[in-house]
Amino acid sequence: MADPHAHPFAGDPVFDLHVGGKTAIRSTVPLAGRDDLSLAYTPGVARVCEAIAADPGLTRYYTWVPNTVAVVTDGTAVLGLGDIGPAAAMPVMEGKAVLFKQFGGVDAIPICLDTTDVEEIIETVVRLAPSFGGINLEDISAPRCFEIERRLKDLLDIPVFHDDQHGTAVVALAALKNALRLTGRGAEGTRVVISGAGAAGVAVARILLEAGVSDLAVLDRQGVLNSERHDLTPVKRALAGDTADRFGRRGSLADVMAGADVYIGVSGGTVPEGVVASMAPEAIIFGLANPNPEVHPEVAHRHARVVATGRSDFPNQINNVLAFPGIFRGAFDVHATAITEGMKVAAADALAALVGDDLHEDYIIPSPFDERVAPAVSSAVSGAARRDGVARA
Amino acid sequence: MADPHAHPFAGDPVFDLHVGGKTAIRSTVPLAGRDDLSLAYTPGVARVCEAIAADPGLTRYYTWVPNTVAVVTDGTAVLGLGDIGPAAAMPVMEGKAVLFKQFGGVDAIPICLDTTDVEEIIETVVRLAPSFGGINLEDISAPRCFEIERRLKDLLDIPVFHDDQHGTAVVALAALKNALRLTGRGAEGTRVVISGAGAAGVAVARILLEAGVSDLAVLDRQGVLNSERHDLTPVKRALAGDTADRFGRRGSLADVMAGADVYIGVSGGTVPEGVVASMAPEAIIFGLANPNPEVHPEVAHRHARVVATGRSDFPNQINNVLAFPGIFRGAFDVHATAITEGMKVAAADALAALVGDDLHEDYIIPSPFDERVAPAVSSAVSGAARRDGVARA
Repeated sequence: MADPHAHPFAGDPVFDLHVGGKTAIRSTVPLAGRDDLSLAYTPGVARVCEAIAADPGLTRYYTWVPNTVAVVTDGTAVLGLGDIGPAAAMPVMEGKAVLFKQFGGVDAIPICLDTTDVEEIIETVVRLAPSFGGINLEDISAPRCFEIERRLKDLLDIPVFHDDQHGTAVVALAALKNALRLTGRGAEGTRVVISGAGAAGVAVARILLEAGVSDLAVLDRQGVLNSERHDLTPVKRALAGDTADRFGRRGSLADVMAGADVYIGVSGGTVPEGVVASMAPEAIIFGLANPNPEVHPEVAHRHARVVATGRSDFPNQINNVLAFPGIFRGAFDVHATAITEGMKVAAADALAALVGDDLHEDYIIPSPFDERVAPAVSSAVSGAARRDGVARA
Repeated sequence: MADPHAHPFAGDPVFDLHVGGKTAIRSTVPLAGRDDLSLAYTPGVARVCEAIAADPGLTRYYTWVPNTVAVVTDGTAVLGLGDIGPAAAMPVMEGKAVLFKQFGGVDAIPICLDTTDVEEIIETVVRLAPSFGGINLEDISAPRCFEIERRLKDLLDIPVFHDDQHGTAVVALAALKNALRLTGRGAEGTRVVISGAGAAGVAVARILLEAGVSDLAVLDRQGVLNSERHDLTPVKRALAGDTADRFGRRGSLADVMAGADVYIGVSGGTVPEGVVASMAPEAIIFGLANPNPEVHPEVAHRHARVVATGRSDFPNQINNVLAFPGIFRGAFDVHATAITEGMKVAAADALAALVGDDLHEDYIIPSPFDERVAPAVSSAVSGAARRDGVARA
């Protein structure tokens, strides 16, 4: 096994920590002697297999499947690093797995696939499905991620969740709800600009629409998504119809930022300070690119009342870890067949509600280390699963 | 999560033990606060990903991949239960996973596939390969298992091992070596009968040939495999040429058992006592079917000097757990690209040698709980990997 003192980057704390990886399997049953072995393995185990063969629903009681999620990537959109391939994606997937366990008590298995073909990814995940209670898609590039998720949701009767989309969307919605409350705004009538139309941008836009925001402009590198453009993918075209088209918004970032109430950056790049300054009074700025927010907090604070980033070293960290562990915990607790829009909005509401009366410019979203987070999210998600008719327990 | 007091077979010790499954994920790194998170996850993890993207060989240091084996089944030949499907196979695969960990320190992930198509199984495992340091095929029916293993060995540069074949073969060879020593026989000149030409039977025959046994007859339900038969699969036809053809053996079990020195049953069914009685003096009988050996030890002892079974409640248990944890431990310790015939024979030699001077009719093979087993096997396997040129460290 790896010697922690002998590796190419020995002495670097990040690499030292990663020696041997971050995840391991453990046994939850005793294996001290023949009697233990005859219960956990042959001959005893045969009776459990026979019972499940007769009634596959018993899987939920006698295997780890209902508490296990596959964290599936093809390595095409890893963090801000892009298409680095499946081998190099593994440390992120292992990190995700330990966060699932730590914050949600969910057993997560990192699966890095040696294919980037949409059909192959879909059929591979379908074939793996009997081994898992849920599928967390991770770091798969847009627009492929949209089709993969949609098709897998249709094909499988277990939760399928693309965290880069929906984890980000849930936490951003929670933070935005509190920011709107703090600045006395409602969802209706608030002008929102989302910079970035990849996985996160599309999902944030969709959940804001679900939550009642209507005046929404989403931009990609070519400008505002609207139906006059002829370069849009089907996903962007549909989104244009539901967002900028409705208020006739078009043009560049500078065009739509003038007078906007909310800026949400999920694109990278930098917004010129003059453009930031053109926003409405009491503006709300979420610069979520890591490690360099689209609007640095120092700049943002000169022109906005509420500022959030994806970073842990500034207040108001919009971090997916606030969402995905509790969402899967809540879905698994009721053996949900899917993760619905209602479950995502319920997760955002629960997150937002934890802030309560402590709401403040520098406290619109709880800390990832607030121990109330996962229980509150999971409970809300379980309830929404029951209301939406996807709970099996 | 599952309430251990509320399940359909509550009160049954086997089912009580299985509530929630037998495996779990654990984190091997601290996650107590922001600093931990910034090392194990963003932003720190990005540097590890970048390093691996630049040099994929670094996977061996900074991920769990090199210590992780996928236990892959399609559920077509589970224990003695047959084709019970992937969901019902999971308790066995979880059992295998905990044995891998307990005895070999190997992290094993149970993967039950929702396909029985040979091509689909092969392509699925190939796509999963970046996530694993090795592939343990399990409970896949013959003759499909032969092609799947052969093709995957060609396609992948990590160990691929079908335990039902080679685990059984290694332990049977180890036990036979000691039984031959005890009865003063050599490999050459000893007449061996193997009843069963499925995964285990074929692999046992192959490893005995490798070990120098030449007078070997292998039987399926239609009798001795020989080239005069026109009903043989390609695998059986090749085996016939290497075994019974060479000594002109043909006919039924009764025909070849008369005067045979060794009987190895991996078929199920029962050998009539009259047939057992026709064997040579000081006969050796391994009845490996579970739970009912082909020759019950009580019957066997009336006609043979050395008797072994697959059961833990009789002496001389031929149990795969003596082999697979140490074989993968040894392969992983040197980052082997394959498991060669030499590594298997080395494992059998190491197992046999542990018995040493304590050799006795009731002690031809160590106990699975003998703590010397996995270290001895892994050390021998690592050495053989180096000799065979498949070690990368």
